[in-house]
Formats: sequence, structure tokens, C-alpha cells
Amino acid sequence: MKLYDGGRAPNPRRVKIFLAEKGLSVPLEQVDLGKLAHKQPEYTAVNPLQRVPALELDDGTILTESIAICRYFEALHPEPRLFGQGARDEAMVEMWQRRIEFHLLVPISQVFRHAHPAMKEMEVPQVPAWAESNKPRVTEFLEILDRELKQRRFVAGDRYTVADITGLVCIDFMKPARLAVPDTLSNVKRWHAEVSARPSAKA
Amino acid sequence: MKLYDGGRAPNPRRVKIFLAEKGLSVPLEQVDLGKLAHKQPEYTAVNPLQRVPALELDDGTILTESIAICRYFEALHPEPRLFGQGARDEAMVEMWQRRIEFHLLVPISQVFRHAHPAMKEMEVPQVPAWAESNKPRVTEFLEILDRELKQRRFVAGDRYTVADITGLVCIDFMKPARLAVPDTLSNVKRWHAEVSARPSAKA
Repeated sequence: MKLYDGGRAPNPRRVKIFLAEKGLSVPLEQVDLGKLAHKQPEYTAVNPLQRVPALELDDGTILTESIAICRYFEALHPEPRLFGQGARDEAMVEMWQRRIEFHLLVPISQVFRHAHPAMKEMEVPQVPAWAESNKPRVTEFLEILDRELKQRRFVAGDRYTVADITGLVCIDFMKPARLAVPDTLSNVKRWHAEVSARPSAKA
Repeated sequence: MKLYDGGRAPNPRRVKIFLAEKGLSVPLEQVDLGKLAHKQPEYTAVNPLQRVPALELDDGTILTESIAICRYFEALHPEPRLFGQGARDEAMVEMWQRRIEFHLLVPISQVFRHAHPAMKEMEVPQVPAWAESNKPRVTEFLEILDRELKQRRFVAGDRYTVADITGLVCIDFMKPARLAVPDTLSNVKRWHAEVSARPSAKA
């Protein structure tokens, strides 16, 4: 088994944090995104969508999509439960994981991809107006998240879950996207400090 | 229990098809998207993200995000399995469900939201250049999907799953987005005809 990794890119980082929380270790193969290695024929044969991460199983099966990879490890190594336990709890984790992905990770990515000079060759064409219109969405969602985090310790409840992993990666991805968490959002900042202090955050 | 519905909008439709495949029936409450009812205070109290669908449980808990709602019903009523069964199969279903969502549903939605005159009040500001740059992405993904569907009956394997539901809703959503499946993609067309013929597709 090996994981095709992409350095500090947000999606492979999600899987690496997840593995660290599970106490698992998987051999990594680096795909040099800066050199557009993910767009070359060799990696396109691994994932026709030209995205990292991808997990190659021992029988050669390729599994892509960070959360699909995480779910695979959750099924093989259930503890600690990072996708919740029981119908209601699992649904709440899925809801928050998806809310964070669609309403925070996606708009931050769009700002990064469509406004950052380093992304000119990767995102063709860059649409600066689209980057701009995503900026207020990031803040609007963070305000909603702040109200939620006033009531509980972690994103999806009182236990750390995959929704916290996606959330942590989002906040850290704001820096290269040249965005910042407003100082007034003290609950988001408290939560981010706590999840950043876990050893897994170094992944 | 009741489901806040939004007529023919793609996301509530996913949940309704899922329920039909399970043989389940849930009372619906319509949210009139045309009148922007989802942006009014009453519905914002249900879902601060102002999106449909939302499932209200008997204890008042609100569950949002179509796939979170579907997973909740899968946990309560496991058969027929629409998220796969076993670590590897569940991961493959999740991978395809997410590939279809991010690489087909998202670009089609962006074309619809940023190019359709009816969306002027909902998508502020519309960014026509962003709509344009999503059009080739739709075709590129459909070409990848066509190669996959040459090898098997359904999106994620030889059994119908939630990935087929998301796929069906995508193809049908192409019409209001003023997009069409190229005639050369015969495997996509064969698969779409088959999933459209299931009684659940009427939902």
C-alpha cells in the first residue's frame, strides 16, 4: 500500500492528519505539484482527474478522494472513531464535514486558485472576479461556525472528528490564500489553537 | 420527521430518489426557492446556510446536506445498500459519489448559477467568465465517466448506488444549465437511460 502525496497541499494533508490520529503509517510517494507532475501521463494513469492524494492498495486498486481514503482506513481501523458512531452521530459528522468542505474549503480554494500568482499555470484561466466573490463567503461561513463553536468544543460535537481535520486544514490554507480569520471570531480561534496543538497537526 | 424540499432542485431530488429506492416515505414541506423562501428568516432558523434539503427529526434536530441525510436513512434502513458494503466497496462508492459531485455536479451548478438569467437574484454577482470556464470541465469529466461505464453497468460497480443517484441528477440538471451530453458518449447515454427508467427517477 502507498499514498501518493502532495507535500503541504490541503487534501493530502487531511489524509495524513487522519492517519496520525489513528496511529497509522503508510509509505508516501511524493507527486511534485510545483512541477505539475500530477498533470503528466504517469500520474494521470493513477488518477485520470489529476488530483492528489491517491491510495494504491496492495492488489493495485487505486482509491482517490481524501474522504473516501479516510473512510477506508476508518473501516479497517475503527478506533478512535473519526466519522462518529451510531446513525445520528455519524450523520451529524457527515453534515459538518460537508458543510466545512463546501462552504469553507471550496471558497478558500477558489480564492487561492483564482487570485494567487503561483496558480497561473494550474488554473487556466484564472477568473479574478470569481476569487473576489468568494472572499465574503469565507467570512460568512466562519461567523456561522463561530456561533456553533461557542456551544461546543469541536466542530461536530464534544469529540474530535474528521470535520475538525477538514476545518483545521481550511484555516491553515487561508494563509497562502491571503485570507485571515477576523479577530472577533474568538471561538474559531480557540478551537483552531486546540486542534493545532494536537501532534497530528504536524502532518 | 419531515423533509424540507425544494421542488425540482437537484439536491432535494437526490434525497427523494434515495428514499424511493429504499421504499421509504417522509412528509415533505415545500420551500419555494423561486420566491427566495430559503433566504427568509423562517428557513434561515432551520438552516443558517439557506440551502435545501433539511431533515427535521422528531426531537427537533435539524440535519442538512443531502448525503448526510441519505447516510442517516442508510443507517436506519440498511437494505438495499446504496453506500456499498465492506471497507473496499464502501470506499469505492464514496470515491465515485464524490468524483461525480465535485467534477460534475459542481461545474454544472456553476454554469447554471452564473449563466442562467433566472439566477440573477440568487447568485450575486453572477460571473459569466466563471460559467464559461466550467463548460469544458463538464465534458472532460463525462469523457472519463464514459470510459468507466464502458467497463461496468453502474457508476461505482455492478450495483446501483448513491453515486448513480448523484449522476442521474447531474445529467438531468444539464438541461436547465443549457448543456448537453455529447452524442459520442454512448456509455453515459446507455447508463442514463437505464437509471432514468427506474421508478425512483420520477422523484
